[in-house]
Amino acid sequence: MAAKPVDMPPMTYRFLGRSGLQVSSISLGSWLTYGGYIDKERTYACVKAAYDCGVNFFDCAEEYSGGESEIAMGEAIKKYGWKRNDLVISTKIYWGGAFGDNPVNNNGLSRKHIIEGVNASLKRLDLEYVDLVFAHAPDRHTPIEETVRAFNHIINSGKALYWGTSEWDADEIAQAWRYADKLGLIGPVMEQPAYNMLTREKVEQEFAKLYRESGLGLTIFSPLQSGILSGKYKDGIPEGSRYAQKNIEFIKGFWSETNKDTWNGIIDQVNRLQPIADRLGLKMPTFALAWVLKNPNVSSAITGASSVEQVYENCRAVAAVDKLTPEIMAEVDEILKNKPPELTMRW
Amino acid sequence: MAAKPVDMPPMTYRFLGRSGLQVSSISLGSWLTYGGYIDKERTYACVKAAYDCGVNFFDCAEEYSGGESEIAMGEAIKKYGWKRNDLVISTKIYWGGAFGDNPVNNNGLSRKHIIEGVNASLKRLDLEYVDLVFAHAPDRHTPIEETVRAFNHIINSGKALYWGTSEWDADEIAQAWRYADKLGLIGPVMEQPAYNMLTREKVEQEFAKLYRESGLGLTIFSPLQSGILSGKYKDGIPEGSRYAQKNIEFIKGFWSETNKDTWNGIIDQVNRLQPIADRLGLKMPTFALAWVLKNPNVSSAITGASSVEQVYENCRAVAAVDKLTPEIMAEVDEILKNKPPELTMRW
Amino acid sequence: MAAKPVDMPPMTYRFLGRSGLQVSSISLGSWLTYGGYIDKERTYACVKAAYDCGVNFFDCAEEYSGGESEIAMGEAIKKYGWKRNDLVISTKIYWGGAFGDNPVNNNGLSRKHIIEGVNASLKRLDLEYVDLVFAHAPDRHTPIEETVRAFNHIINSGKALYWGTSEWDADEIAQAWRYADKLGLIGPVMEQPAYNMLTREKVEQEFAKLYRESGLGLTIFSPLQSGILSGKYKDGIPEGSRYAQKNIEFIKGFWSETNKDTWNGIIDQVNRLQPIADRLGLKMPTFALAWVLKNPNVSSAITGASSVEQVYENCRAVAAVDKLTPEIMAEVDEILKNKPPELTMRW
Amino acid sequence: MAAKPVDMPPMTYRFLGRSGLQVSSISLGSWLTYGGYIDKERTYACVKAAYDCGVNFFDCAEEYSGGESEIAMGEAIKKYGWKRNDLVISTKIYWGGAFGDNPVNNNGLSRKHIIEGVNASLKRLDLEYVDLVFAHAPDRHTPIEETVRAFNHIINSGKALYWGTSEWDADEIAQAWRYADKLGLIGPVMEQPAYNMLTREKVEQEFAKLYRESGLGLTIFSPLQSGILSGKYKDGIPEGSRYAQKNIEFIKGFWSETNKDTWNGIIDQVNRLQPIADRLGLKMPTFALAWVLKNPNVSSAITGASSVEQVYENCRAVAAVDKLTPEIMAEVDEILKNKPPELTMRW
Repeated sequence: MAAKPVDMPPMTYRFLGRSGLQVSSISLGSWLTYGGYIDKERTYACVKAAYDCGVNFFDCAEEYSGGESEIAMGEAIKKYGWKRNDLVISTKIYWGGAFGDNPVNNNGLSRKHIIEGVNASLKRLDLEYVDLVFAHAPDRHTPIEETVRAFNHIINSGKALYWGTSEWDADEIAQAWRYADKLGLIGPVMEQPAYNMLTREKVEQEFAKLYRESGLGLTIFSPLQSGILSGKYKDGIPEGSRYAQKNIEFIKGFWSETNKDTWNGIIDQVNRLQPIADRLGLKMPTFALAWVLKNPNVSSAITGASSVEQVYENCRAVAAVDKLTPEIMAEVDEILKNKPPELTMRW
Repeated sequence: MAAKPVDMPPMTYRFLGRSGLQVSSISLGSWLTYGGYIDKERTYACVKAAYDCGVNFFDCAEEYSGGESEIAMGEAIKKYGWKRNDLVISTKIYWGGAFGDNPVNNNGLSRKHIIEGVNASLKRLDLEYVDLVFAHAPDRHTPIEETVRAFNHIINSGKALYWGTSEWDADEIAQAWRYADKLGLIGPVMEQPAYNMLTREKVEQEFAKLYRESGLGLTIFSPLQSGILSGKYKDGIPEGSRYAQKNIEFIKGFWSETNKDTWNGIIDQVNRLQPIADRLGLKMPTFALAWVLKNPNVSSAITGASSVEQVYENCRAVAAVDKLTPEIMAEVDEILKNKPPELTMRW
Repeated sequence: MAAKPVDMPPMTYRFLGRSGLQVSSISLGSWLTYGGYIDKERTYACVKAAYDCGVNFFDCAEEYSGGESEIAMGEAIKKYGWKRNDLVISTKIYWGGAFGDNPVNNNGLSRKHIIEGVNASLKRLDLEYVDLVFAHAPDRHTPIEETVRAFNHIINSGKALYWGTSEWDADEIAQAWRYADKLGLIGPVMEQPAYNMLTREKVEQEFAKLYRESGLGLTIFSPLQSGILSGKYKDGIPEGSRYAQKNIEFIKGFWSETNKDTWNGIIDQVNRLQPIADRLGLKMPTFALAWVLKNPNVSSAITGASSVEQVYENCRAVAAVDKLTPEIMAEVDEILKNKPPELTMRW
Repeated sequence: MAAKPVDMPPMTYRFLGRSGLQVSSISLGSWLTYGGYIDKERTYACVKAAYDCGVNFFDCAEEYSGGESEIAMGEAIKKYGWKRNDLVISTKIYWGGAFGDNPVNNNGLSRKHIIEGVNASLKRLDLEYVDLVFAHAPDRHTPIEETVRAFNHIINSGKALYWGTSEWDADEIAQAWRYADKLGLIGPVMEQPAYNMLTREKVEQEFAKLYRESGLGLTIFSPLQSGILSGKYKDGIPEGSRYAQKNIEFIKGFWSETNKDTWNGIIDQVNRLQPIADRLGLKMPTFALAWVLKNPNVSSAITGASSVEQVYENCRAVAAVDKLTPEIMAEVDEILKNKPPELTMRW
């Protein structure tokens, strides 16, 4: 395993929204990778490289690789004898279909699946508790009150320390807080949305009032938009890349004829961002990650990595944030033309 | 054991009232059968046949066969290695007289009996928790607040996921919600009443406002009115049938001279329903079960079965629901003349 | 051990105030007797005789005989293999001075002593929970809110089912309910005062409003006023009787010169009650016990017994209650002249 | 080990604010001593000497000597077979940096550190619960609501009996009570500030309204101002004394040139107090301790001791309190000139 570069900048930590918990600005996610197409030895090496760079937040979910991801992450954590108190481990509950013979009651945010799902995740992770438990998606069949109560039951029984949401709408998060407040329970402290240069509306516009009203923290995923912002697709789809994995459902849409212009437009924008990165002396992925961290509402950017080198590269982003001056940010906005309008404060 | 017919329709699932839990439209109850007059081998076979047809809800009670029913059901569940998360298991607490030398405090809905009763049921079922726990009857000696608190204690200690009532009056359910709301506790999510073509008032009239106000779900029992709607009594009382079991207290009333006209009137109605079933190509029990499922407030119809064939027959009802057009429903109402009046919505 | 008399009347049971728990009208207490001056064999025999007569409530306290009483009671319960659900066991927490080298924090109703005291009592009784836990006295140093919270903690942790008070003033009980209501907690369901023909004010006057407002139940002690109402002192103080035990602090007061007239007045009243008992065909203790049970606010009369025969005698009182007609009650009042005035209902 | 002097006055006990818990007026702290520069044999001897003098409160913290202090205290308690109910043991949570490889999340009052910190403290102490758990400092990054909920979680899970604060500002304590009241939770019952003749403002002025409004109790530390009030520095800094330990951060400030006049002024004041102590027949440390106990809002004065003799000396202070007449108190105020102004009661 490649040694940690001597010039690696120190990790920075941010409070998870209005909570007292601190997460590393760059964190390590396990979607599609660990327990999936990355073998265990490489998984252990990536997790260790991240830990060595100061990453303390490792993001898991019951759904990733049908549970194998949690097993691999749990083993990595155990392997190096790290102290539990030095780590922030998450899981996400919603898609537990793989754990039953019948999809009924193994998906969603019913009290039954939340309790059964968390218990099964903790068993796979071989942990007594996770720090964070997320509702992995909104469940519009289950009353939000039932979900709020169930996550509080998990916290009261010592199996999680904080709970939050993933890919919920702003009004759903506000409703969760409504029930929490009414019942004197703990509300969702964090949300996990996709966020990157190309996907900005939810984080910059829709959630704008939640930061102040509910102290919402963000652990964002897809900071490189599935690798598009790494620049690796500028000349087509390289073999082994995410967009070459045609068995993943949502990727297929990109290859339809109707999407061709959209794709080409995006690649064109990314190609025009490259000179800015070059000027700042940053690789494209580092530039894109630093751009995400520039947003003070982002507590942590969850990165995927299939090699130790990629982990190191990602962690360098923390030192690049300051290079993104207001002028640079304006240049980026000019190219992307997707900056949401300012929030109207008074009428 | 007879193999599952190749033309068995797929099971359908419904949310249990305004909760996130889904139960199979047809479920399997154990009253008087498993642990009672059905031996264990046949019990296991029936439970397996139901599971194979997609039944996920198995209904138990501390009282059934003096506890033997829960033991038999628990063994069946264990025997086939099914996953706990694929099952919805219930118990009901009220009549625990068989478990003491003194009936005092072993019956009813005191905090003492609810806690002791649930613990004993879980031991018989050999489970860590039931999904549903019912108050098997109203207890008008115990304050409803005490009962609401006790069931919440059961849920908080992880021994049940949801609680509900059985054969309670509408105003008692509303009172339970009143205490739950006042104290920030969990209210009763479901009620288990008798419901079938011949017994309609409670479900269609008395509970009408609870569906909207409290999101009440129904797991109904006696969908065939103790077999009367199966048509098996059209020419008298066959040996081995429920109404031939003269040691069951409530059945005796049927044989009194004063009840003769009532009985004959009912049999006459059932005989007049037969041609409708014939026309739809349905057996009478399937027709009667489908009629129950036509009511959208019914989450599940609990069926008894003493043979694998009967289980299969019951499960076919889910495919018959759509055959019950408004015209067919009107024909049935015309014969039964027991449709409760519409609820007055505005004065 | 003397066999249970064939003509023993069936035990009666009463709800403990506005709760769903039923206690036998006659119950067995252990103060000064079991674990104290009564040896274990006799203790077991008395407890068994009571159980055989239908007594289900056995009253203990951490303080009785420095803990030995709970050990003896616990052993008796275990010895006969009775079912836990058939029994109502209590303990009382306040005087735990015997369990420490330092009286500080081993007495009173602080959160510390309530939690430590209940844990120690359960260990001595060898039980997982008591049905009833009493605050054995008011503690005017500890805020009532702290005590209410601590007993609710005991109930929430499954170590007791109901809590109540002993020898508290009416306004203290009302304050406890005030905190319970404010915090959504469980209030004190029962109080244990002294009550008998000679001591009436607290039960008949001071608590009068609590029965309706808070549904207070009573488990009364001293129904024979330390034996005075048994008539055994009519010709002086027999050896071996309670009032001959001069090492008990509160008894000493009776022998002071200043108390002589009071004592003689009481004995004179008791002697005048004897003819009424004779006329009804009742022994004096049975008469006095039946008189206590005549009060519908009394849930149970706790009796002491040092012999099996005494247990049987006490249990006979349940059949004598109906003999106490309004005319008899008026005759008693005429002799005692201590009936509290009626409660003024409207001004 | 020196035997307990025959003329040792009996310990006095005080209620911890508006709680039902009693603590010895003089208590034993472990900061910098036990597990630190005092070896285990001497630690055991000091703890035993304190216990023998009636000290029941032993004050610990996760931070003291990097956890070694709790291990030593826990061993001492075990060694002598004392009863848990006779002891009041505390810990304090905030500085757990020594227990991680990464300071992030090991310091402060987040839910994560409070839960992980208390669990680790209990393991070191080898106890199931502490009586008191303190927030060792205010954490202005963590919302006070999160901290209030986390300490209540600790109390509900049976790991502590009461919680409080240390070195918080008055308004922070009031905010904690605001959240506790709003949520029906338990508020902080005690605060641990520094208090002595030379440091009076916080206890006598800033907290003045909290005693009445919130019933705040005080377990004060530094009653001798790190030994200055013992008089030992009157002729300079003796070797082995606290102010000779130059590796302790806050002590360094005293040796700066700018602090010279302040230091000399203080030593001068202490030298002028000596004659008063002499007149009362008290040693200076006893005099200073008694002065602290004269304040009725002080529940306990936490003393450090590195020898058995020092323990005995400290415990003598309880008998000296009455010697501090109003005239003596006025004389002290005249020398110190630091008495905070009276609280304005009405405008």
